[in-house]
Amino acid sequence: MSDVARLAGVSIKTVSRVVNDEPGVHPATAERVLAAIDQLGFRRNLSARNLRRGSSTGTIGLVLEDVANPFYSGMTRAVEEIARLRGRQVLTGSSDEQPARERELALEFCARRVDGLLIVPAGLQHGYLTPEMRAGTPVVFLDRPAGDVVADTVLVDNIGGTIEAVRHLAAHGHRRIAFFGDAPDIFTANERLRGFREGCVRADVGYHEELVVMGPHDEHTVAEALRRVFGGRQPATALVTGNNRITVYVLRALAGRTDRPALVGFDDFELADLLSPPVTVIAHDASALGKAAADLLFARMDGDSSPPRRVVLPVRLVPRGSGEVTA
Amino acid sequence: MSDVARLAGVSIKTVSRVVNDEPGVHPATAERVLAAIDQLGFRRNLSARNLRRGSSTGTIGLVLEDVANPFYSGMTRAVEEIARLRGRQVLTGSSDEQPARERELALEFCARRVDGLLIVPAGLQHGYLTPEMRAGTPVVFLDRPAGDVVADTVLVDNIGGTIEAVRHLAAHGHRRIAFFGDAPDIFTANERLRGFREGCVRADVGYHEELVVMGPHDEHTVAEALRRVFGGRQPATALVTGNNRITVYVLRALAGRTDRPALVGFDDFELADLLSPPVTVIAHDASALGKAAADLLFARMDGDSSPPRRVVLPVRLVPRGSGEVTA
Repeated sequence: MSDVARLAGVSIKTVSRVVNDEPGVHPATAERVLAAIDQLGFRRNLSARNLRRGSSTGTIGLVLEDVANPFYSGMTRAVEEIARLRGRQVLTGSSDEQPARERELALEFCARRVDGLLIVPAGLQHGYLTPEMRAGTPVVFLDRPAGDVVADTVLVDNIGGTIEAVRHLAAHGHRRIAFFGDAPDIFTANERLRGFREGCVRADVGYHEELVVMGPHDEHTVAEALRRVFGGRQPATALVTGNNRITVYVLRALAGRTDRPALVGFDDFELADLLSPPVTVIAHDASALGKAAADLLFARMDGDSSPPRRVVLPVRLVPRGSGEVTA
Repeated sequence: MSDVARLAGVSIKTVSRVVNDEPGVHPATAERVLAAIDQLGFRRNLSARNLRRGSSTGTIGLVLEDVANPFYSGMTRAVEEIARLRGRQVLTGSSDEQPARERELALEFCARRVDGLLIVPAGLQHGYLTPEMRAGTPVVFLDRPAGDVVADTVLVDNIGGTIEAVRHLAAHGHRRIAFFGDAPDIFTANERLRGFREGCVRADVGYHEELVVMGPHDEHTVAEALRRVFGGRQPATALVTGNNRITVYVLRALAGRTDRPALVGFDDFELADLLSPPVTVIAHDASALGKAAADLLFARMDGDSSPPRRVVLPVRLVPRGSGEVTA
C-alpha cells in the first residue's frame, strides 16, 4: 500500500479511503490512486469490489470457440445486444478449441480490467481464473461448464436432446442407430454421447459400440466412418450427428446418394429445411444461450451474490424429413 | 500542459519529454503523466502520434452490420487472427444498418482509445470521425466506402461481379434477366445494380426496369416480387440476386417448385453446393476482406502515412447448376 501511496503522491490513509470507498477524497486524487494501483498490479490484494465500483472499464469479455461458426456468431450477437442495453462494449476472441488460447484470451481480458467475463471453455482447467474471480470479476461459462472451479454456467440440454433423437428414430423402426460425435474430451460431445447411450437403453434398441465414432473432424474422416458403419454385414440404418459441423460433413459425403440413412442432427442450421431431404434436427437457440449468460453476468455485476447457478436451456426436435425415414 | 504536470506531480518539462517521447523519464513517471493526460482528456491538443506510442490500449474496434450474418462473422474471425498476431484485442459491435448506431459504436470505441478502427459503414456521413482521424486514430472502411471523408477502404469488385453474372446467364440464352437487390442507399447494393445494368448493355440483352426490385427485405416481399417478375405476359427467365440473404429468401420462396428461373446469387454461402439445384454464385472471400483491411490498419498504426488507399478484391463466378439452366 505504501508503494501505491508513494507512486500516487498521497498518504496511506488516502489510499485506504479510496480502496474502501470512503468519502472525503477528491475525484482526481482517487483516479490517481486507482491508476497507481493498476500500474503496480495491486488489485488482487485489495478489496476488489469497492475498487471496481470506482474503475469500471465499461467492457465485458467473450471468449468463444470460433466466431465464424454460425452457432457462436448468433451467441455473440445476443451478448452484444444485452451489453448494449447496459452500456457495455464487448471484447471477443476465438480460442479455436485450444485451452492455452482460451486461458491467454481470458487473462488478457482480465488484464484489461473487463467488468465481467463470458467463456465458452476450450479446456477443463480453470483454476487460473480463481484469483480473478476472488478479486471480484464475475465469470459465467456458457455451452460447457468450467473444469475445476465452481461458477455460473448456462448449458443446453445435451442429454435430453440425444435421448429424444434416438426415441424419434426408434419410433420409425430403427434398431441399429449410429452416433458420430465431436472429440470425447469436449463436454458437449461427451454429454450427447451419454444421452445417446441412455436413449438406446430407454428405447430398447441396444447400444452398439461399433456404431459410435467420436472425433471425425473433416469431410474425409466422416466419409470413411460412413462407409464403415453403413457398410458391412450388419449396417446401421440411422444416424445421430453430434453437432452442426458433423451434420454438414455427413450431408456432403452423402450428396447424390439415394441409399441414405435416416438422420437426426444436433444443432439447427440455416437451409436445413431446403435440403433434399430436409434435415431433422435437435434445435436449440444460440441467441437464447448468449442472452441467458449475459443476463446472469450482469446480475452478478449488479451485486447478486447468491450461490453459483447452473441454467439448462431446453432443446426440441424439429422433424423435417431426414429423420422420418422408416427402417 | 500545466494541468497535466500538476495532476501528475511532475514538472512541465517532464510532461513535454513524455509527450515527445524523449529519453530521461522514469517509466513509472511516464505512466503517471500519461494517466493524467488521459484523465484530463488532453489527447487532441497534443501530438497524437507520439502520445499514442506511449499509451496504446492494445485494442482495435470493429463496427460491422451484424456479427450473426456469416459474411461478417467470417470477416470478424480474420480480423481477430491478424489482431492476435499483433498482440491486440478486438472490440466488436453490430450497427444493424443504422447510421446512428454505427456512429455511437465508433465514437464509443474511440472514447475507449482504440489503437485503430475498422468500420463497415451503415451511413453515408463520416465527418464525425474527422477529429479522431486528425488526432491520429487510423480508420479503415471495409465492404463499403466512407461517405464524406477520404480514408482507406477495402471493397470487393461489386460491379465486375454482376457484370459477370449477367454475361453468364446471357451465354445460356437468357434475354429477360431480373435483379433483386438490397436497399439502393446501401453502397454495395447500388454498385451491384450498376454492374447489372452495365452487364445487360455489354451482353446486349436489354435492361428492363420492371425486372429490377430493390430492397425486398423478407421472404414475403421476395415471394411477391417473384410472382410479379416471373408471371405476366413477358416473364423473366433468369434472376441475379444481390446478396446472400436475398438468395436465401428466393430459394425459400421457390422451394418445391419445378418451374425455377436460372439463378446466380451474389455472395457464396454454406451448403449452396448441396441444394437442389446447387446454387451458382458470385463468390468473394469475407475473410480475405477482413484480412486486407486489418493489414492496412496495422500498417497505418505502424506509421505508414502514404495517401489513403482503395483496395478492390476480386470476385469469381462459381457455376454449380442453378445458373446453367438454358432459357
